[in-house]
Amino acid sequence: MSDSEKLAPATAEQEAREEAVIAQVLGSFAGCADERLRTVIQALVRHAHAFVREVRLTEAEREAAIGFLRECGDITTDTRQEFILLSDVLGLSMQTVCVNNPAEGEATEATVFGPFFVEDSPEIDNGGDIAAGASGTPCWVTGTVRGADGEPVPNARIDVWEADDDGMYDVQYGDDRTAARAHLHADGQGAYRFWAITPTPYPIPHDGPVGRLLQATGRAPMRASHLHFMVTARGHRRLVTHIFVDGDPQLADDAVFGVKPSLIKSFVQRPAGTPTPDGRPLDTPWTQVRFDIVLAHEPPRGAAAG
Amino acid sequence: MSDSEKLAPATAEQEAREEAVIAQVLGSFAGCADERLRTVIQALVRHAHAFVREVRLTEAEREAAIGFLRECGDITTDTRQEFILLSDVLGLSMQTVCVNNPAEGEATEATVFGPFFVEDSPEIDNGGDIAAGASGTPCWVTGTVRGADGEPVPNARIDVWEADDDGMYDVQYGDDRTAARAHLHADGQGAYRFWAITPTPYPIPHDGPVGRLLQATGRAPMRASHLHFMVTARGHRRLVTHIFVDGDPQLADDAVFGVKPSLIKSFVQRPAGTPTPDGRPLDTPWTQVRFDIVLAHEPPRGAAAG
Ligand SMILES: [Fe+2]
Ligand SMILES: [Fe+2]
Repeated sequence: MSDSEKLAPATAEQEAREEAVIAQVLGSFAGCADERLRTVIQALVRHAHAFVREVRLTEAEREAAIGFLRECGDITTDTRQEFILLSDVLGLSMQTVCVNNPAEGEATEATVFGPFFVEDSPEIDNGGDIAAGASGTPCWVTGTVRGADGEPVPNARIDVWEADDDGMYDVQYGDDRTAARAHLHADGQGAYRFWAITPTPYPIPHDGPVGRLLQATGRAPMRASHLHFMVTARGHRRLVTHIFVDGDPQLADDAVFGVKPSLIKSFVQRPAGTPTPDGRPLDTPWTQVRFDIVLAHEPPRGAAAG
Repeated sequence: MSDSEKLAPATAEQEAREEAVIAQVLGSFAGCADERLRTVIQALVRHAHAFVREVRLTEAEREAAIGFLRECGDITTDTRQEFILLSDVLGLSMQTVCVNNPAEGEATEATVFGPFFVEDSPEIDNGGDIAAGASGTPCWVTGTVRGADGEPVPNARIDVWEADDDGMYDVQYGDDRTAARAHLHADGQGAYRFWAITPTPYPIPHDGPVGRLLQATGRAPMRASHLHFMVTARGHRRLVTHIFVDGDPQLADDAVFGVKPSLIKSFVQRPAGTPTPDGRPLDTPWTQVRFDIVLAHEPPRGAAAG
């Protein structure tokens, strides 16, 4: 942080008054019986007050912030999670991922969860198609799931979900469709394969307060093209990640800071008429990508308790 | 802050990864054309990420925080402002007041605005009654409005509002009543007088997420007894404050940290039958309080720009 960004209070007396407020608030939480909650809330108090003091927040700005949070609440539904978007565009989701997923050898890196996961997606066979009518260029996805020790992880559960090539997740259509989301299980040797659609860039929902914040600050709402994965297997750390598309110009400017170089994969273009790996008849172009997954240990080494 | 509360990341590599996320997020706001907005949002990013890193926030805790904000949104209406309550109980409202109202000579100290102000309250004559049917012990309030130079401020506008002795503001009843709130104008010599009701302690609304937060952290929702004032006059800093009741046991434990010693006033008890100052016939006990107001200059000296 640059010192010029710090606007010090005018006098030592004023500084003492501001610090007295903090001491009073911290003291009010001193009797909290839940030690972890006390630690978290007292840290929140310290950092939030430091923010107010550093920027010399005006009353009008505090009111605007309250109004902003209210607007986030007003637009939020089960399928439109504005507070998740806010956490995402401030990089707080990615920072939480970073804090909780320390690098471990060759383990696949994690990235943001995003607001579009749905519990209990339909199950498909290993080799099946998740599209279920979602529009887009077919994409054959294959790989293996291994542990940090290099051994295959049999029967890992793999949840996958993505937007269609109009940039929309099924849940954004407001009907009851389920498309471009499913789960499957890797085979006994940890191998998996499925049809999906080739990821394309899409904007995060930006017709609400978070979108207005992005616009006011000169930022774009676009996400780099990606396919979501969540991989779970007993004895391993749950992996929530994406794969990104090599060559996507949006990679350098992802609205939620989710891109990691190790997650950028080559989606190989196959012209119409190229025979498909599983013999599926296709008269359109398709793509092909490989994503080999390495799961970290559970519990993660080096992660903080809590 | 105690060092034991800091949970450092395990390795220098991990520290670098976490700092890289912050750098990326700060960079995304570098193009914000509004310099003040850029300063505020970049400071917010730095402090929020410092919080996440310091407490090593877990994914479950981040999800709980998102859910908490959503619940605040769900309960919020025009007359139930949960985000204001949240700002209040974390002391952020009081800190903002403190930052924007530096001490200036004898100027009356400010305190929190609270969520129950209503624009365009009814006007009463100087000497009138704000109760309008609200239950409570009548209270005769008098004082003068002066400037920092000691000269009377003629015709200052004085807004006053308070809870009834059931601890309820009019807007909390859910009917259309207006009671225990009004505005009046001081006379040409800055003198004012009105009937109100004697303030009694009341809980902030605590049947929502903020109430559950207070309960989980072992805090009480009670506010010290108070009468709200907002005083406006051209050429003077707007004063938003309360007066508190000397002897109220709740003074030491106000849920929103609004108490300042200079704002504690003696509410003198008058037995039933004591003649009233304005000849109003009263067959009940009543109280009497004096509150002399000194307005600071506008713009405030020593306040930050912005
Ligand atoms: Fe996504
Ligand atoms: Fe109040």
